[in-house]
Amino acid sequence: MPVITVQMGTGQAKDKKELIRRLTSAANEVTGIPESSYIVFIEELDYDNIGLGGVTLTEKLAKQ
Amino acid sequence: MPVITVQMGTGQAKDKKELIRRLTSAANEVTGIPESSYIVFIEELDYDNIGLGGVTLTEKLAKQ
Amino acid sequence: MPVITVQMGTGQAKDKKELIRRLTSAANEVTGIPESSYIVFIEELDYDNIGLGGVTLTEKLAKQ
Amino acid sequence: MPVITVQMGTGQAKDKKELIRRLTSAANEVTGIPESSYIVFIEELDYDNIGLGGVTLTEKLAKQ
Amino acid sequence: MPVITVQMGTGQAKDKKELIRRLTSAANEVTGIPESSYIVFIEELDYDNIGLGGVTLTEKLAKQ
Amino acid sequence: MPVITVQMGTGQAKDKKELIRRLTSAANEVTGIPESSYIVFIEELDYDNIGLGGVTLTEKLAKQ
Repeated sequence: MPVITVQMGTGQAKDKKELIRRLTSAANEVTGIPESSYIVFIEELDYDNIGLGGVTLTEKLAKQ
Repeated sequence: MPVITVQMGTGQAKDKKELIRRLTSAANEVTGIPESSYIVFIEELDYDNIGLGGVTLTEKLAKQ
Repeated sequence: MPVITVQMGTGQAKDKKELIRRLTSAANEVTGIPESSYIVFIEELDYDNIGLGGVTLTEKLAKQ
Repeated sequence: MPVITVQMGTGQAKDKKELIRRLTSAANEVTGIPESSYIVFIEELDYDNIGLGGVTLTEKLAKQ
Repeated sequence: MPVITVQMGTGQAKDKKELIRRLTSAANEVTGIPESSYIVFIEELDYDNIGLGGVTLTEKLAKQ
Repeated sequence: MPVITVQMGTGQAKDKKELIRRLTSAANEVTGIPESSYIVFIEELDYDNIGLGGVTLTEKLAKQ
């Protein structure tokens, strides 16, 4: 029943299948709660909708 | 002022109007807080972005 | 697998058992997703940690 | 490290860059935690996915 | 109706009243949505429940 | 900058340090985003505040 919600930029997780598999198995190994009980949500946001230190991720990447 | 956030697969709630109406009225009946105070957010996620037991919802449905 | 998270003031839901029961059954009736698939989280927050219109719930209630 | 998540209607924040800048600087001024530590997520939802007082935002605006 | 949820360490916002006031007014100034429509939730978490770079905030502060 | 929020029962993660370490490293290995960029929040809820299939976790465990 634990729910794991990941907030990240769209496309940052190329392999979402693997991300879900690995987060679930890591949590299972630490807590002992069976893998079947876990729900994972990957919430992907546009780089314009993410702020780091007061600046959008879009701006941040453009500066690099 | 209570806020109810639903995380679910895109399209799983065919009738979002009705889902919002019913969740709000159920919460109102139990708590006595007036319906006008409630906010509901329905966050719909792609089946690739939802993990159940370490497997994406896409994979899960393909196996059935 | 839908997850319903309620954010509200501590103690506003006197009967949490009933709130969980009713939200789950309302969602089930609208979506057809079986009740057994739902998870509900009731996140209770201190009145000092809730803002309505820029004012804490504590201040708001004191003014009434 | 504080994380500020805003849930709002799609397009309600015309200037997301400015919203992120202002929320981060307001939080910094109150808490003293440096701006560089803040993450902001703006989650935009369709008006059909937002309920106010049991009615979708779409319906609400249509009535006005 | 926008909802602003802040996740931060317990006690990091000494003046929660002011934090709520300032976040609400910043968002109002950028979006034009009236202050009365905003809800703010400040979710405070123990330093043991916050991870930065894979290390709890408790460990991080102990190392400094 | 990805943020991982875990919602679970109070005490279900005996070793929160390890849970944070493992989730962060799993996400890093899949996405390539450096560990230093991750924030993890473990939100622990009372068993009375968690519903599974319409029943609180407290009731569920009592029945077993």
